[in-house]
Amino acid sequence: MNIEKIRAAADRNAGHVVETPLLWSPFLDEIAGRRVLVKAECLQHTGSFKYRGARSAASALHADGSAAGGVLAYSSGNHAQGVARAAREFGRPAVIIMPSAAPEMKIANTRALGADVVVYDRATESREALGEAMRDERGLALIRPYDDPEVIAGQGTCGLEIAAQARGLHADVLVCCGGGGLSSGIALALEAEAPGLRVRTVEPEGCDDVARSLAAGHAVENARLTGSICDAILTPTPGNLTFPILRRWAGPGLVVADDEALNAMALAFRHLKLVLEPGGAVALAAALFRDVTDPVIAVATGGNVDADTVQKALAR
Amino acid sequence: MNIEKIRAAADRNAGHVVETPLLWSPFLDEIAGRRVLVKAECLQHTGSFKYRGARSAASALHADGSAAGGVLAYSSGNHAQGVARAAREFGRPAVIIMPSAAPEMKIANTRALGADVVVYDRATESREALGEAMRDERGLALIRPYDDPEVIAGQGTCGLEIAAQARGLHADVLVCCGGGGLSSGIALALEAEAPGLRVRTVEPEGCDDVARSLAAGHAVENARLTGSICDAILTPTPGNLTFPILRRWAGPGLVVADDEALNAMALAFRHLKLVLEPGGAVALAAALFRDVTDPVIAVATGGNVDADTVQKALAR
Repeated sequence: MNIEKIRAAADRNAGHVVETPLLWSPFLDEIAGRRVLVKAECLQHTGSFKYRGARSAASALHADGSAAGGVLAYSSGNHAQGVARAAREFGRPAVIIMPSAAPEMKIANTRALGADVVVYDRATESREALGEAMRDERGLALIRPYDDPEVIAGQGTCGLEIAAQARGLHADVLVCCGGGGLSSGIALALEAEAPGLRVRTVEPEGCDDVARSLAAGHAVENARLTGSICDAILTPTPGNLTFPILRRWAGPGLVVADDEALNAMALAFRHLKLVLEPGGAVALAAALFRDVTDPVIAVATGGNVDADTVQKALAR
Repeated sequence: MNIEKIRAAADRNAGHVVETPLLWSPFLDEIAGRRVLVKAECLQHTGSFKYRGARSAASALHADGSAAGGVLAYSSGNHAQGVARAAREFGRPAVIIMPSAAPEMKIANTRALGADVVVYDRATESREALGEAMRDERGLALIRPYDDPEVIAGQGTCGLEIAAQARGLHADVLVCCGGGGLSSGIALALEAEAPGLRVRTVEPEGCDDVARSLAAGHAVENARLTGSICDAILTPTPGNLTFPILRRWAGPGLVVADDEALNAMALAFRHLKLVLEPGGAVALAAALFRDVTDPVIAVATGGNVDADTVQKALAR
């Protein structure tokens, strides 16, 4: 992985991804006691940064002719939608293998984006067995959610935008972190383009494998993958490609409670007019409620959130 | 009013207003049966375009020294917040006269932005009598919500952005319309910068004074100023300055039902991750549900919306 791959992804994605704005509100600044700049990545197509990486990977596969039969992805929601939309843009079929427990809206939206969604039961079926059979049969190319250089490069284009939008600033850039695709991509982009900006990962309490791995200096696992409302960023362990990048370039990992993520969701709703999902609000929560730099930049992202969760956040 | 005033307002506001993005979603396109481009003006500071006009007016007053004592505005909410924030930026006090029936959140936010909010009872008090007394006593300069050249010029900067973002497009630009400040400002900007784009005003059913005035060729009044959920855009009659501009440059006015505005709110929430208020969603409603051009541009804006209205929209 290197900055050239990110620049190439930016070239391929140019005119297709939304260049998302950097927003702020005096209300949030007052709550945080510092200037909080919010990279509104929920305004990206499909509602999350996942489309950047999916389109980068799909365009690379398209260019080298290896996705002639279509693409395959495993995802519980946001990566699914990113891949579905990117594949459709290249006129390729997409097969997405989703757990039956995935949010209904995410399954419906993935289907509406033209993908062939195969639902499996996490308890009794192996998604890999299902996927490999279809892959061989239909000649599909797999797009991994984070441990793929072209996906990391695509997510890194978000970092190129931050570098341009926050030129000259010295600040932490807080990034929600599941497998680390977005945070490692942004870290690489900032290393090359904005030496005053440093990535810090943010995870929900109880699923803080990256924070603990960064502290330990080697990858450790989560004891559980449930129990947090931040379903979009619950991954078992840091990625093989992403963790070495984070270890080298990211500051110490931050951790927030579900309650703080919901609070950040409500504040983004009220003061920035943005709809986030809980997992996409953790970086804003850390920017508001943790001891970080002034100013600070938080990447805020979405995907889909149901009316109940919105109500839960707004009732606060 | 002319394009030079808009360009001057853009110069004064540069670096202070958010250049709001033009977004779209394949889900909205499918519902509408056309490409729908959404100017996400709810991402403007204070949540609505009103800040553009307020800052333009405040900066003009600041430059000619006539707001030394501070500024005064009458508003039920969005203009109030725009003026409060703009005045604070120039280190001037702001006195805002708001009806006691204004949404609580809008009163609270106006106060939080540093304004001196004077609440009056619409039934028993005259806001003009209150305002004129304070104006004389404290030497305040009035910033009108729409019938003020500098306010129209500030709103017109939104049109300059649309012209740049939609260069070469032939399309209708649908704009929510109360007194007509935003729509007339955009109309003037497009006339000069984007001859392929034409403004059409959008109003809620029952308060469609501008649509009826455009059809009649002269200003007519609304029979009532209540009964619509679109409280932000209920005005008695088209503005003296704004109507002649609209008459000359705008297409026929469009009208939507409250129910359609709520539906548009919910769709913007789900597919664009934007929080609109009902009055700010009428243009998107018309883009989705009326016979307009393909492509079409809709200005979507916010202000503040309470949790109950959000729930009402999302329950659909």
